[in-house]
Amino acid sequence: MTEKLLIIAHLDDSLFYNFTDYGVEVFKPSDLGQTVDPADITIAFGWNQTAGNQLLNAPNSKLKWIHAISAGVDTLPLAEFAKRNIILTNSSGIHATSIAQSVLAFILHFVRNIDVAMANKPKQHWPAIDEVKPHSMTDFTYTIFGTGHIGQEIARLIKSFGAKTIGINSTGHPVDYFDETLALEHLDDHIWQSDVIINVMPLNDHTRQFYNQQFFNHFNNLFLFINVGRGPSVNSNDLISALQAGQVQHAALDVFETEPLPANSPFWRMDNVLVTPHSTGQISHFQRIQVELLLKNLPGFVKSGTISQNQVNLDKGY
Amino acid sequence: MTEKLLIIAHLDDSLFYNFTDYGVEVFKPSDLGQTVDPADITIAFGWNQTAGNQLLNAPNSKLKWIHAISAGVDTLPLAEFAKRNIILTNSSGIHATSIAQSVLAFILHFVRNIDVAMANKPKQHWPAIDEVKPHSMTDFTYTIFGTGHIGQEIARLIKSFGAKTIGINSTGHPVDYFDETLALEHLDDHIWQSDVIINVMPLNDHTRQFYNQQFFNHFNNLFLFINVGRGPSVNSNDLISALQAGQVQHAALDVFETEPLPANSPFWRMDNVLVTPHSTGQISHFQRIQVELLLKNLPGFVKSGTISQNQVNLDKGY
Repeated sequence: MTEKLLIIAHLDDSLFYNFTDYGVEVFKPSDLGQTVDPADITIAFGWNQTAGNQLLNAPNSKLKWIHAISAGVDTLPLAEFAKRNIILTNSSGIHATSIAQSVLAFILHFVRNIDVAMANKPKQHWPAIDEVKPHSMTDFTYTIFGTGHIGQEIARLIKSFGAKTIGINSTGHPVDYFDETLALEHLDDHIWQSDVIINVMPLNDHTRQFYNQQFFNHFNNLFLFINVGRGPSVNSNDLISALQAGQVQHAALDVFETEPLPANSPFWRMDNVLVTPHSTGQISHFQRIQVELLLKNLPGFVKSGTISQNQVNLDKGY
Repeated sequence: MTEKLLIIAHLDDSLFYNFTDYGVEVFKPSDLGQTVDPADITIAFGWNQTAGNQLLNAPNSKLKWIHAISAGVDTLPLAEFAKRNIILTNSSGIHATSIAQSVLAFILHFVRNIDVAMANKPKQHWPAIDEVKPHSMTDFTYTIFGTGHIGQEIARLIKSFGAKTIGINSTGHPVDYFDETLALEHLDDHIWQSDVIINVMPLNDHTRQFYNQQFFNHFNNLFLFINVGRGPSVNSNDLISALQAGQVQHAALDVFETEPLPANSPFWRMDNVLVTPHSTGQISHFQRIQVELLLKNLPGFVKSGTISQNQVNLDKGY
């Protein structure tokens, strides 16, 4: 049987031949009910609610595999996929390099006082030398919640600056580039001595609203809080209070509970907060990398219905 | 004979015992002509014109060694020191870690579009995803003029991000962490294909006004020009013209021809320029590190008048 692939995520037509060369028939959402019966689609590249529902609601749907072009898949109907034995792959790993580079940009921005330099610029203010107190990367301890591809690449880069890294994962198992690892449910007191906290955890029942008032209350003056994971892992109001109270000195946020970040969000107006538009995972040649990822799994899928990499555990959600 | 040390650079009194423990007598500039004859000072810690002239102008001065607390010593009267056989040591090396961290902060600021995010913030502008085009560190080639301690540490960090480094030094001799090295006087055409240029050269007759119109004319759209070396190596007006013409897209400048940077300098008002106040070499525990550096050389100096590290070649100026 020929696989029928629906391209839901944006993909330049010039990349379609990558699939047709493998004998796969390629369709767009506008073809559904026209040149192809939605029930006959076997693979989806990307996902959105409109096209997704057309596939799921088609009687006798043959949908067997969805490839998500993001690492996080929490917005997808995982329980429904599980019930129908649909395979889900994600793009975990391909964003690691890009996100880790942004995290280092955030850290160095505050550690090396680029924030101060930018505030001084419109005032043409050249501070006296004893007013200037940049920190060194090695003055601080960096705790990364999440030790998967992304967390590990962040830790590797921080280690190349000679600084100390602590990793938090489900069981506390050791991971390369982390000086220490601890289980999420058994956080030691010395975690609260960290200077920089970085969230890259997936969103699930354990991590939703994890960073709340109770979490921030552990700190007197955390130097920097970074969220490049998922917006709903953070209680925005609690973070804003912690920033205002000085429990958290600076924040760099790429993801938010509501996106786009509303114009009335206090984050836009706080001098000690850096806001990026959910862009840290954006990478050069993104489409080509996604196509390559799907193609790596395609032969095994066609032959025996098995997937060699990036399959999501639908119960765990990652 | 007991060495008599004049503390010219600022040093907390609490650190003086480091010297007295070695049997060295310690004086401040206010002691000159009071408790100590300027002619009897044998070692100076730091240098400025006022105190320096008191020492040099004292008849039968016994001054034998000056320790400069900076890496660059171009503002000191090197020819006069040479004539008198005065040893000069500098602080080359101790600033490398600090300056390299700032250089990476500058690079990541522009590569990862932190500049764009900060410009969007006061407008509460959340761009659409296809408006956002952060680069990757590996999209670019980085050419570092100067392959000493500082240049090498910068190259090491850039390599840890997986990107390509080219080093420029006097002879083109190979240096660790540089994929290629070239001699300053034999720059190949492919240097002009670089995306990021970083200056860490000392100031001397070869490097003064080196970055001028002729240099910038080699580029159509250099992504980033960084100066953390010496201000007078750059012709400011020529750099401003190159930035305005788009030959240079962005600049990050820590040193300037005139410091403090005058309020009417166009650099303050250019959106594509990051200005820091000659602060990249500022490091934590700076005084203690300087004292340690002098103490490393002290035993050999007292015993036989020899210096084990950081002696400046007074002809070359570094």
